[in-house]
Amino acid sequence: MGKKINVGIIGYGTVGKGTLETLKHNVKSTAVKTGLDINVKAVADLRINDYTNDTLLQTVPVRTTDAMEIINDPEIDIVVELIGGYETAKRFILAAVAGGKHVVTANKALLAVYGAEIFKAAESKGVTIGFEASVGGGIPIVNVLKEDLAANRILEITGIINGTANYILTKMEDEGKEFADVLKEAQALGYAEADPTFDVEGHDSAHKIAILASIGFATLVPFEKVFVEGITSIKQVDIDFARKLGCRIKLLAIAKRHDDDIEVRVHPTMIPVTDLMAQVSGVFNAISVKGNKVGDTFHYGRGAGGEATSSAVAGDIIGIARDIMSGAERRVPVLGFTKELTYYYPVRDIKEIQSSFYLRFLAVDEPGSLSKIASVLAKYGISIYQAIQSSKQSSGETVPLVFMTHLTEGSKVMHAVNEINSLSVVRDKTVVIRVEGLED
Amino acid sequence: MGKKINVGIIGYGTVGKGTLETLKHNVKSTAVKTGLDINVKAVADLRINDYTNDTLLQTVPVRTTDAMEIINDPEIDIVVELIGGYETAKRFILAAVAGGKHVVTANKALLAVYGAEIFKAAESKGVTIGFEASVGGGIPIVNVLKEDLAANRILEITGIINGTANYILTKMEDEGKEFADVLKEAQALGYAEADPTFDVEGHDSAHKIAILASIGFATLVPFEKVFVEGITSIKQVDIDFARKLGCRIKLLAIAKRHDDDIEVRVHPTMIPVTDLMAQVSGVFNAISVKGNKVGDTFHYGRGAGGEATSSAVAGDIIGIARDIMSGAERRVPVLGFTKELTYYYPVRDIKEIQSSFYLRFLAVDEPGSLSKIASVLAKYGISIYQAIQSSKQSSGETVPLVFMTHLTEGSKVMHAVNEINSLSVVRDKTVVIRVEGLED
Repeated sequence: MGKKINVGIIGYGTVGKGTLETLKHNVKSTAVKTGLDINVKAVADLRINDYTNDTLLQTVPVRTTDAMEIINDPEIDIVVELIGGYETAKRFILAAVAGGKHVVTANKALLAVYGAEIFKAAESKGVTIGFEASVGGGIPIVNVLKEDLAANRILEITGIINGTANYILTKMEDEGKEFADVLKEAQALGYAEADPTFDVEGHDSAHKIAILASIGFATLVPFEKVFVEGITSIKQVDIDFARKLGCRIKLLAIAKRHDDDIEVRVHPTMIPVTDLMAQVSGVFNAISVKGNKVGDTFHYGRGAGGEATSSAVAGDIIGIARDIMSGAERRVPVLGFTKELTYYYPVRDIKEIQSSFYLRFLAVDEPGSLSKIASVLAKYGISIYQAIQSSKQSSGETVPLVFMTHLTEGSKVMHAVNEINSLSVVRDKTVVIRVEGLED
Repeated sequence: MGKKINVGIIGYGTVGKGTLETLKHNVKSTAVKTGLDINVKAVADLRINDYTNDTLLQTVPVRTTDAMEIINDPEIDIVVELIGGYETAKRFILAAVAGGKHVVTANKALLAVYGAEIFKAAESKGVTIGFEASVGGGIPIVNVLKEDLAANRILEITGIINGTANYILTKMEDEGKEFADVLKEAQALGYAEADPTFDVEGHDSAHKIAILASIGFATLVPFEKVFVEGITSIKQVDIDFARKLGCRIKLLAIAKRHDDDIEVRVHPTMIPVTDLMAQVSGVFNAISVKGNKVGDTFHYGRGAGGEATSSAVAGDIIGIARDIMSGAERRVPVLGFTKELTYYYPVRDIKEIQSSFYLRFLAVDEPGSLSKIASVLAKYGISIYQAIQSSKQSSGETVPLVFMTHLTEGSKVMHAVNEINSLSVVRDKTVVIRVEGLED
């Protein structure tokens, strides 16, 4: 083996353990690829002393409860932050960067919210922040945007980037059960956290799309400007109607570039069942990218789990090790662009964003209901692509009316729906779900 | 803009023109990403003087019929070879490498056949050969294997990597037409060459999978050991039976790693319609990769065309420009591994490769035909997963009998089919198509 690159891992949870295993199990194959001995010199975890039965961990020379021992070790070249969360992780990363160490992290929440500070510190020190693992688990996408697709002007990035939400929606569709029941099962199976808010309310997807949009559009995306709507109010009846309309409902993260601003949003979305994205089932993730030259690409794989995510963490470690050994300095800017790291493009308000809409009204089952609703839609200039009125679904008193609109502005739909909700023939709050891929 | 990197393009066909357009159209966005001015200083083409109406080309300072003018220009950092073919392209690349220039090429045929010589020359000179564009057009896959997935032991690579063949198979399936008719239409539309041999006989896919397998398995794959079977004998009747069996027929390129050898093969393959790979239609390409840590990933996009391919060519140019500016030397080995570039893993003979098989027999429509055939299969230890005998398809005299086998060795099937073909109840040569993804 060639020269030794020393790595210190902070955080020995699923991904930390996975990363140690990947580097150890594949040590020969990695040495063949890099000519380097990538050596895990230290692992820090507050509960490190609970893992005395972990024989692989015992082969690591330094096992400590004190992360600063890694950060202050002059022999360590690369610090891997895998503790998650905000304040402590940020402090460790900034300390490592200040010490001139390269950093690899899977912490999307931290990067989405405090990225600017961290990236600026890294740029000024000339060190790398590897964060391939922060989006899409093992799927190569962060570095693909920074490097492989760098010749393109990126126009759109769309993804299913939260496995928990996608697992729940897939189960709801396959088994006909309601959200709450599927969530309970997912929690029992370990596919959803005890507090699933982060995943099912779309925050995690929003963190990830903010990161991808920043790279793709060469700008910093202020996380608080990302529109977020989760999947907790998705009902089986809407999944059924989606099916009748040739669609599926997915929690999509969507970023689009316009001439003067960008869209960045996360919400339940109906997409045609024929889209590749609609074929992404269970805990899998996928990201599609539209570049002005490459056209549409699609990248799919396991979006979570210790093993898959460790592929991305260890891939970043190998990349940095190759930089060190080849003498590369500041080879690729941390976010893939050389502009000052300041906010740049305005983010378009959700009300001004155009899309098609699925609207489900619960109307009194009598002649004239449909025409009253349709006349309000017409008044706001909303034209209808498809409508479903099924007397089979009548409760005797009420009947669901479903409309799919052509492309229209969000604010028009909001105004129309408000007005329709106050009609005497309408008996429940109207369900509104955005539709993508129906017409472009 | 920052420092200038000078590029010379040899070959001004579809991809050469596309590359010039991509670098010129996206010059601002590329400058933002790299801090560099990537400047096309020269274009060489034997017919350069036919393009006087090409205004973009006229902005290039040096336009010449003599490629050596580019290769010998001391100001040029990167030589882009896009003429295709073997001898001349090889001479140009080796001359550029000898002169210490980095090279970008889309020439899969050359790399598959003469790669060892070219890669060795590049390694010894310490220059880069960028060949992302040689496989899958704009889909990032070559660099993904060399870098992003480098932490994995790669176990399998499977792809639809010839757009012409996939276009023809998709049309046959969608429109119920036979191969010859669809080929004619494809030629009229420019989706197939006047001489389509290279594409429809699988040679192009074989070149590409040899390259991917070399990177993935850290070995050189001798091209002549790749088993190749094209799609010219695929019949509509087999596409129909595939549909009944829940499958589609695709021209797959398949590489698998075993403990002591590897499989590398190209042939028409039945795959379950539920596979993502089965959803790849028309001229699109896709590659799936199985790594020992990341699990299955899937990479999809346009596999050809000047624009999409230029995304990969220009991406490699940007990567090399970043190497030059950052001072990186020999950052990533040309094939992604540091071993001596000598043949290593043996390639398993197609006869010894296990898969499931689709077998269509044309038998005399009388009692006992099926049992005679089945008894020969049993004699060779071939067990049946599914069988279809449809009296509807009887011609009165003969009836097709279809069997799908469990995993079995190729040689057993060949022997059994030879024996069955000589049975008096069998009236035509048996059709044999391999099946993947049915059982693992």
